[in-house]
Amino acid sequence: MLEQLKQQVYEANLKLVEYNLVLFTWGNVSAIDRESGLVVIKPSGVDYSKLTADDMVVMNLDGEKVEGRLNPSSDTPTHLELYRRFPEIGGVAHTHSTFAVSFAQAASDIPAYGTTHADFAFGSIPCTRDLTKEEIEGDYELNTGKVIAECFESRGIDYNAVPAVLVRSHGPFTWGKDGFDAAKNSAILEEVAKMAYLSKTMDAQPANEHIQHKHYFRKHGANAYYGQK
Amino acid sequence: MLEQLKQQVYEANLKLVEYNLVLFTWGNVSAIDRESGLVVIKPSGVDYSKLTADDMVVMNLDGEKVEGRLNPSSDTPTHLELYRRFPEIGGVAHTHSTFAVSFAQAASDIPAYGTTHADFAFGSIPCTRDLTKEEIEGDYELNTGKVIAECFESRGIDYNAVPAVLVRSHGPFTWGKDGFDAAKNSAILEEVAKMAYLSKTMDAQPANEHIQHKHYFRKHGANAYYGQK
Amino acid sequence: MLEQLKQQVYEANLKLVEYNLVLFTWGNVSAIDRESGLVVIKPSGVDYSKLTADDMVVMNLDGEKVEGRLNPSSDTPTHLELYRRFPEIGGVAHTHSTFAVSFAQAASDIPAYGTTHADFAFGSIPCTRDLTKEEIEGDYELNTGKVIAECFESRGIDYNAVPAVLVRSHGPFTWGKDGFDAAKNSAILEEVAKMAYLSKTMDAQPANEHIQHKHYFRKHGANAYYGQK
Amino acid sequence: MLEQLKQQVYEANLKLVEYNLVLFTWGNVSAIDRESGLVVIKPSGVDYSKLTADDMVVMNLDGEKVEGRLNPSSDTPTHLELYRRFPEIGGVAHTHSTFAVSFAQAASDIPAYGTTHADFAFGSIPCTRDLTKEEIEGDYELNTGKVIAECFESRGIDYNAVPAVLVRSHGPFTWGKDGFDAAKNSAILEEVAKMAYLSKTMDAQPANEHIQHKHYFRKHGANAYYGQK
Repeated sequence: MLEQLKQQVYEANLKLVEYNLVLFTWGNVSAIDRESGLVVIKPSGVDYSKLTADDMVVMNLDGEKVEGRLNPSSDTPTHLELYRRFPEIGGVAHTHSTFAVSFAQAASDIPAYGTTHADFAFGSIPCTRDLTKEEIEGDYELNTGKVIAECFESRGIDYNAVPAVLVRSHGPFTWGKDGFDAAKNSAILEEVAKMAYLSKTMDAQPANEHIQHKHYFRKHGANAYYGQK
Repeated sequence: MLEQLKQQVYEANLKLVEYNLVLFTWGNVSAIDRESGLVVIKPSGVDYSKLTADDMVVMNLDGEKVEGRLNPSSDTPTHLELYRRFPEIGGVAHTHSTFAVSFAQAASDIPAYGTTHADFAFGSIPCTRDLTKEEIEGDYELNTGKVIAECFESRGIDYNAVPAVLVRSHGPFTWGKDGFDAAKNSAILEEVAKMAYLSKTMDAQPANEHIQHKHYFRKHGANAYYGQK
Repeated sequence: MLEQLKQQVYEANLKLVEYNLVLFTWGNVSAIDRESGLVVIKPSGVDYSKLTADDMVVMNLDGEKVEGRLNPSSDTPTHLELYRRFPEIGGVAHTHSTFAVSFAQAASDIPAYGTTHADFAFGSIPCTRDLTKEEIEGDYELNTGKVIAECFESRGIDYNAVPAVLVRSHGPFTWGKDGFDAAKNSAILEEVAKMAYLSKTMDAQPANEHIQHKHYFRKHGANAYYGQK
Repeated sequence: MLEQLKQQVYEANLKLVEYNLVLFTWGNVSAIDRESGLVVIKPSGVDYSKLTADDMVVMNLDGEKVEGRLNPSSDTPTHLELYRRFPEIGGVAHTHSTFAVSFAQAASDIPAYGTTHADFAFGSIPCTRDLTKEEIEGDYELNTGKVIAECFESRGIDYNAVPAVLVRSHGPFTWGKDGFDAAKNSAILEEVAKMAYLSKTMDAQPANEHIQHKHYFRKHGANAYYGQK
């Protein structure tokens, strides 16, 4: 079932390697078929060099495995919660990319220091609150997804305009219209995070709002004029 | 038309990839044929791996497309303004290279900390002022070019001696005698910016003026003695 | 003798190169055959490109060479002491990887800033005390091993839960169930150290204990649920 | 003449590229035939990809070109002064490698923070004083060599035990028994400088003298026991 989506999710997972975002098995991409509500995700702890499209695992949004010989990524409940709470996204990626993780470990948003950031996201990339002892010792991966959604809701951030989050003390999740888009957003986030680290350690201030808006809307939405039609 | 220049601009754009200066489609090189006043530039948002010489777009200095199936780079009006204001340049490059962008985001000139810098440019690489709300919401890319030219004029900087600028909160533009030279200057600027970041975070002071002058004129101008005749 | 183990140790040494952890000859991996008490280790100062499985040196735990044309790594007495003091380990690796060495030079533990760290080790990666003048001028490499073991014992750290140490002013040693595992732990340690450097220079605090415990036990021990069965 | 030495110097120059120490043409290696007092050096400003052994230039110690179609490196007078003042060296290398240059720009010695450094050099890598206006405007490259030698003499540093220097505001020169050794020392210096940058920004202190001595003499001199006989 969903052979085409499995192939795409497989290829999107390999993109994480191509983008130099993963060491060993530390990353995963999923994508959803919104019509059937089924999610395809990488299996847990399998070497990228040994991975095949056929190894992909199919889950439903209730967290039940529908198809697949292998265990899904241990982060699957986080992905599923994001699909439930962010109904317009089609793919999710999770990495431990170096600079994005470092901001998560520093419990810091990534401020919008410039137009590279504004081309990607509208305002800061938020860093969530800590999970509580109860949330951690309970259904941890599900609660990680809940804390991400809470972060966007409580701060009034539009997940369509900010396709990335830093889970505090952990690392980034990104999303997009499909698995490829989610993986690409992980690569952009890492570059934006690297620039932000360098800027922050030179005492930068966020870019002014006008240029942030300009760059975001130059690339996104009805009046975008970047690229080809 | 201008087939040879299109080939050169195409190849100069690929140099940005070879020099590790671009992620995805974030960069562009143009060159001008001063006789006809026509500018050849990369199309907007096209993957470097799919680009052909034939995709290059020909513009005149009034900002009108003269030839080409595709939209020109969204930064085209900035390039055109630089050709109008800096009459001796033959090529322009724009990247979002990591360290140069970080200085732009930190709203900081790149001080001339040493001879690597002085071999390249005479004095600091200037960082422009912020564009105003009106400049941003108006003809933004054109105004970016105007602010660059204003920066050089108001500070009395010779664009022939400083072939690079940082647009505040945005990133670098470089120029040279042709597209290859402009692209090469982007690579040198990035290395100079990296060394400057490391030096600045170790509390460096700019090099003394005598050694700056010595190195600049060892490589540039009538009395240069670096390289072969 | 021990031809299979020599082949494994040879390949595990090459992994250090593949993981970008060594410059020139700066690294070594060993493994032990616990049944015979014999240790196979890389020879001293031999180029990785010229190394063969047959060059591996066989030592006993009393520090005597049992087989091999070449001198063993000068760090051999450290490896042997680790095998004596940490009876459950099967492999040891030593590198001068950049970020791990930098923490050792800064005489600093690597704090557990996040889940990437907690997936790898339970609590800080300890940095040993300085060796004394007498320890340095005496049997230096043996005393290095003794100071590592003392560090774990005096601080009550379980070497099975923390498979790495920083020797002050020197660099990292890592261990694992065999030579491959030890080499892999060197790669993970370097990435964890890089993230820790970036986090520390952004004033991070260690992750809360609950999430550290959660991630460690998600991957290690009887209740681990990461990966495949 | 000196065809074998030309081949070696040519290959040693390419090592700088292999070690990732040069951008464009920014580096040069020379070697001396002590019997004839002739020095072979890279020509000025020639692309590494176009360089041939036959392009090497032969100079005598009086600074006269003895053979070669091309201009020698503009840094030739510095190399020659080093051969005159440091009579036991056989090769010299100069690069603009990133971290070593950054210490030179910060006008800072590289302190001996650990054993990686002590394996390479006995004590700090010194940074010279600034050249005076007169030294810069006079025979600049010769005076650069004189200031290096003065630095070692006035501080009582043995050039055999410290095979590298940082010329203030400029960058590193390294030396060794031949051109390959000089080039290799440039690579080690860059790695040592990178570790030192990271250590310094984490407030490290130099390693204690006992371990510095131990590591230096473990690898150098009559009682060295690192490597094979």
